[in-house]
Amino acid sequence: MRESFRHWITVPVRWGDMDAFEHVNNAKFFTFCESARISYFEAIGLTVHRRATDQAPAVVTATCNFRQQVHYPATLDVGIRTIKIGRSSFTLEYALFLKDSGELVADGSSVVVWVDYAENKSAPLPERLKERIRELDGLEE
Amino acid sequence: MRESFRHWITVPVRWGDMDAFEHVNNAKFFTFCESARISYFEAIGLTVHRRATDQAPAVVTATCNFRQQVHYPATLDVGIRTIKIGRSSFTLEYALFLKDSGELVADGSSVVVWVDYAENKSAPLPERLKERIRELDGLEE
Amino acid sequence: MRESFRHWITVPVRWGDMDAFEHVNNAKFFTFCESARISYFEAIGLTVHRRATDQAPAVVTATCNFRQQVHYPATLDVGIRTIKIGRSSFTLEYALFLKDSGELVADGSSVVVWVDYAENKSAPLPERLKERIRELDGLEE
Amino acid sequence: MRESFRHWITVPVRWGDMDAFEHVNNAKFFTFCESARISYFEAIGLTVHRRATDQAPAVVTATCNFRQQVHYPATLDVGIRTIKIGRSSFTLEYALFLKDSGELVADGSSVVVWVDYAENKSAPLPERLKERIRELDGLEE
Repeated sequence: MRESFRHWITVPVRWGDMDAFEHVNNAKFFTFCESARISYFEAIGLTVHRRATDQAPAVVTATCNFRQQVHYPATLDVGIRTIKIGRSSFTLEYALFLKDSGELVADGSSVVVWVDYAENKSAPLPERLKERIRELDGLEE
Repeated sequence: MRESFRHWITVPVRWGDMDAFEHVNNAKFFTFCESARISYFEAIGLTVHRRATDQAPAVVTATCNFRQQVHYPATLDVGIRTIKIGRSSFTLEYALFLKDSGELVADGSSVVVWVDYAENKSAPLPERLKERIRELDGLEE
Repeated sequence: MRESFRHWITVPVRWGDMDAFEHVNNAKFFTFCESARISYFEAIGLTVHRRATDQAPAVVTATCNFRQQVHYPATLDVGIRTIKIGRSSFTLEYALFLKDSGELVADGSSVVVWVDYAENKSAPLPERLKERIRELDGLEE
Repeated sequence: MRESFRHWITVPVRWGDMDAFEHVNNAKFFTFCESARISYFEAIGLTVHRRATDQAPAVVTATCNFRQQVHYPATLDVGIRTIKIGRSSFTLEYALFLKDSGELVADGSSVVVWVDYAENKSAPLPERLKERIRELDGLEE
């Protein structure tokens, strides 16, 4: 599964990420995916796009499958890639592994819609953005 | 949609729930659902069960659909119910509404597996637990 | 001590506020104080000021004394008041009580500096702001 | 100032650490200090102690001075040391620097009391613990 991903971030788990069950809290996995997504957005040039056009990505759905409990201390490798490019949205997939053992602890996905905030509705994904996603993830058109 | 839910909690949004986009952060919606889930678990007597048997619920999947941005100040009404009872798991559904306008801002679901932590594997849902869920949500057997 | 405070907010503790020690995490107390501060700022008209003048308050120091552990479920009453008004700063005091028992669980303070973000330095507190603080807290000039 | 500290951790700032002011939220600095403290506790063997004796450290006061705003992306070097050892408490000092520029962004302190949870009161710091603190920080007795 690791080889499906080209873009990675490393997330050191903080002691404070744990909850009263003494494991990393479910909601924190979405924060880890968010960190990966922000990094991925930077890699495909999204920050630049945003200021220039008043259009920006919005996460409309997020899912996570919790496969193993994670406890501090731990470091996670989080892989992210686009698995589907639509007209005005794309779907991201995440996989979270323990750095040390390589074990998969969680995976998930989110649907990101391209929003025109001036018109307050979805807009077609810019061609340049689709190209950059394909380049980064090595996708065929 | 509101009438589908019998169990509710109220969540005052904290200023600190917002992120750098000046709206409530995606991960916080899972914290709101968690608050509803803990309250629901209490209502079906789950805390008691846990200490008595070494078996406990574990969330294995969580999904949220973000339908409207939420900004501080706001108060949310969060409804929760069981929509499916399986052999060793049940599926919870959540709906989050703005208290003032009644607008739906998000909905989601999570699959909860009944785990025997001594044996580290899933176990059949106790009959008493299934009864309480049916009672609380007014479900037919 | 309660009678020293005129401005109050109520904070329902969330299950997720607890950490691996099964008590409310230290850092969350600062979030509770932040919620009180934002509410207090609204009460003295600070949001309006900010947009109008490019000057805004910045917290430069925050302290909290943890007097009792707090566990979910609980609701806190948080009182806030200004205890000192300087030339370009004011000092806020907080007290956090369990709603049910009235017990003091924490208190703290923070120093808020009035910053001119255009010039990136502190600026004299506007007279109107000082008046509103005195009005709200019933302070003599 | 850096040379005063022997024990360090590195904290990559997460995008989600920022709040609606688009800077790292005040409360997060206490989470960063907590990460340093947990690491420091491990270094002086505190986890072991705890299980063995029913005595454990409790933070009773925490203070932070915010000297520079921090924005994602950033990595922080957090130094921690004991600046005072009392009969039943010790005082920790923290300093947070931007990894890249070396700039000090915040510093703070916390008082940690040694608590006997069976008797629910403070207890004398174990001699072995004081020795380890002195060893780690290079303090004279």
